[in-house]
Amino acid sequence: MRGSLLYEGKAKKVYTMLGEEFQLILEYKDEATAFNGEKYKMFRGKGRLNNLISSKVFQYLHMKGIQTHFIETLSETEQMVSHTRIIPLEVVVRNVAAGSLSRRLGIEEGTILEPALVEFYYKEDKLQDPLINDEHAAYLTGLSQEDLEGIKQDARSINAHLKSFFDEADLKLIDFKLEFGKLHDGSIVLADEISPDTCRLWDKKTNRKMDKDVFREDIEDLVEIYEAILKRLEAKVHV
Amino acid sequence: MRGSLLYEGKAKKVYTMLGEEFQLILEYKDEATAFNGEKYKMFRGKGRLNNLISSKVFQYLHMKGIQTHFIETLSETEQMVSHTRIIPLEVVVRNVAAGSLSRRLGIEEGTILEPALVEFYYKEDKLQDPLINDEHAAYLTGLSQEDLEGIKQDARSINAHLKSFFDEADLKLIDFKLEFGKLHDGSIVLADEISPDTCRLWDKKTNRKMDKDVFREDIEDLVEIYEAILKRLEAKVHV
Ligand SMILES: Nc1ncnc2c1ncn2[C@@H]1O[C@H](COP(=O)(O)OP(=O)(O)O)[C@@H](O)[C@H]1O
Ligand SMILES: Nc1ncnc2c1ncn2[C@@H]1O[C@H](COP(=O)(O)OP(=O)(O)O)[C@@H](O)[C@H]1O
Ligand SMILES: [Mg+2]
Ligand SMILES: [Mg+2]
Repeated sequence: MRGSLLYEGKAKKVYTMLGEEFQLILEYKDEATAFNGEKYKMFRGKGRLNNLISSKVFQYLHMKGIQTHFIETLSETEQMVSHTRIIPLEVVVRNVAAGSLSRRLGIEEGTILEPALVEFYYKEDKLQDPLINDEHAAYLTGLSQEDLEGIKQDARSINAHLKSFFDEADLKLIDFKLEFGKLHDGSIVLADEISPDTCRLWDKKTNRKMDKDVFREDIEDLVEIYEAILKRLEAKVHV
Repeated sequence: MRGSLLYEGKAKKVYTMLGEEFQLILEYKDEATAFNGEKYKMFRGKGRLNNLISSKVFQYLHMKGIQTHFIETLSETEQMVSHTRIIPLEVVVRNVAAGSLSRRLGIEEGTILEPALVEFYYKEDKLQDPLINDEHAAYLTGLSQEDLEGIKQDARSINAHLKSFFDEADLKLIDFKLEFGKLHDGSIVLADEISPDTCRLWDKKTNRKMDKDVFREDIEDLVEIYEAILKRLEAKVHV
C-alpha cells in the first residue's frame, strides 16, 4: 500500500510504503524534461514505457549478479524498490562520444571510446549537475576513494551487461547514466532507473536515435520510439 | 642568442636559441588577459616582475629537488628553459576554495580544502580549458594512468614547497596552476611559469588579494601588487 509522497522528481514520484520502512514505490510520470528543465513536454504513456523498460533492465542485471534496489513491478507505472540514501553522483558511462562530451572536449560525435569512459557528475540541480573529478566526488559525497573505485568498477560491469542486453534488441548502447544509493546496512547498490530517458540508444543498422534525444532534438515522437524499444526487448530478451 | 619566434602566447613569447636544439628562451610580456582573453590590459613592468618572481620560484623548487625546465634568468624579461613538449593539461592545486571551484560546485570561497584538491583542465583555448577527469586526461594526452598519478604526486609535493615558500613572504597560497612538459628523453618536468598570474595569493594577515584577481576584479593596481610580492620574496626568501 502506497504511503505518503516523499519526493517528486522530474521523471518519477517517490512514495513510502505503509508499514514497510525499507521499501519505496517509484511511480513513473508522463513528463519529459531536457536541458535542466528548460524544455518540458507531457507524453501520454511514457511513464508506463519507462517503468516496464527499466523493470526489465533491472531484472536482467539482477540475473547477472548485480546488486540493485529493484524488488518488483507493481503496476503499469509503479515499481517497488529498496529505500536507499541516494549518493549525489550521476555516474555516466560512454562507449561512443556524443552530447556534452563531444561539445565540451571537442571529440567528434560517433568516435568509439575503447575502453569506455566513466564520468562522475555532481547531482545538484541548482548547479546544473557539473562534471567533477574523483577528488571532488570524495569531497562532495564523503565516500572513500575505494568506494568510488568500486562504483566505477560496478559501472563498467553494468556496461558490459547492458551492451549485450541492448544488442539482443538490435540497439547500440552509446552512453548511459546510473545512480547508486546506500541501503540501510551501508552497502552500495544500483538505484534509480535505466530507460531511454537515461541511455543513448542507436539502432544497430541505421544509427537512428531511439532515446530521449528524439525529444531534445525534436526528431520523432518519443512515445512511438519508446514503444518500439519495449517491443524489441519483449520479443528478444527473456529475463 | 635568440633564434626565431616559435610561439606567442597570452603572457609570453617563446623563442628558439641559435645552435641550441634543446633550449628555449621565454620572454615575459607586459600584457594581462582574463576570462579567456575577454578582458585585456597592458601593464608596463609586469613582464619583468613575473620573469623575476617565476625565476625565484623555480630556483627554490630546484633546490628542493623538483625536476623543472628552468635553466637561468637571462635578462629582466627573459629566461632560458629546456625545450619540452608541453602536455596539454593545466594542473590546478587548491588549498582554499575560490574562483571557478566555488562557482561550479557551490563551495563557499575561503573554505579550507584539506587535503588539497588536484584538478586537471584540458589546455585548449578553443574549448575554454574545460575541467576533465583522469580518464579524459588519459584519452586526450595519451599519457598512462601511472604518468598522470605521477603528475598529481608532483603537484602535491610542489604544493608543500610553495606553501612554505610563500609563507616566508607572509602570503597564503590559495591555489595555483602548473604545466608539465616532456623533455627530449621522455621524462616529465615542471614547465611554464609560477607567478601571481598563475597563483592565488592572499596576504597572511589581511587576506588582501595579491595576484591576478586584482586585475580580474579591478581591485588595485596590478604592477604595485606584483612589485610588493617581489620585494617580500627578495627580503625573505633566499635561494
Ligand atoms: N531506491 C531509491 N531510494 C531512494 N531514492 C531513490 C531511489 N531510486 C531513485 N531515487 C530518487 O528518486 C528521485 C526521483 O527520481 P527522478 O524523477 O528521476 O528525479 P530527478 O528529477 O532528481 O532526476 C531521484 O532523486 C532519485 O535519485
Ligand atoms: N619549457 C617549455 N617548452 C615548451 N613550451 C613551453 C615551455 N614552458 C612554457 N611553454 C609554453 O609557452 C607558451 C607561451 O606561454 P603563455 O604566453 O603563458 O601561453 P598561453 O597563452 O598558452 O597561456 C605556452 O603554450 C606554454 O605552454
Ligand atoms: Mg532522474
Ligand atoms: Mg599561459
